[in-house]
Amino acid sequence: MSVNLHDLSYELQKALRESDEYKNLVAYYDAVNKDESANQLFTNFRDIQVRLQQKQMSGQEISQEEVQQAQKAAALVQQNPKIAKLMQAEQQLSMVIADLNKIIMKPLEELYGPMGS
Amino acid sequence: MSVNLHDLSYELQKALRESDEYKNLVAYYDAVNKDESANQLFTNFRDIQVRLQQKQMSGQEISQEEVQQAQKAAALVQQNPKIAKLMQAEQQLSMVIADLNKIIMKPLEELYGPMGS
Ligand SMILES: [Ca+2]
Ligand SMILES: [Ca+2]
Repeated sequence: MSVNLHDLSYELQKALRESDEYKNLVAYYDAVNKDESANQLFTNFRDIQVRLQQKQMSGQEISQEEVQQAQKAAALVQQNPKIAKLMQAEQQLSMVIADLNKIIMKPLEELYGPMGS
Repeated sequence: MSVNLHDLSYELQKALRESDEYKNLVAYYDAVNKDESANQLFTNFRDIQVRLQQKQMSGQEISQEEVQQAQKAAALVQQNPKIAKLMQAEQQLSMVIADLNKIIMKPLEELYGPMGS
């Protein structure tokens, strides 16, 4: 990698770390981690999500019971204000990162055409 | 997105576009496009790859015949010097992009731990 690309990547890393979106995410992540019951709810929700995703990606059937379990876990986390804020912060940072990627990867899109076309 | 993140992303886009790895890729991509037989071989190879990937992702069976067809197409493209250079250039740019992403996304890794752990 050229020195220029390397340096700019580190500048972007620093800017991301200093962004409101990242700082919010860290703050809400800490708040959930420090709250035992929120942390347990959130960990359970994430575990279920990861398990279903892995099943889906490997082409395994997902049972009606598993879907209901996931819906129940999702409803529970949405009722917890700390987790709701964390998930909102995650979504906001995801949007920033998607925007960054879109800008940075534009030269590849120009070469190959838009993804999925 | 903050002005800083936005500006740095555009600077990185520009640096990527001006990198040797991207310029090489564009040059080899043009060379293949302009060579009718190379272009046909390469398009066929990519079509087979995309089809198999889609089958795999949707959990469909891939037949023995399809595997053999893909291997044959891969052997053919590797024998074509223009395509071999294009594929090498793609790999080199992919490595640059993976390195960029690793640097930029470090703050997220620090928060969640390394991917897949
Ligand atoms: Ca700079
Ligand atoms: Ca700048």
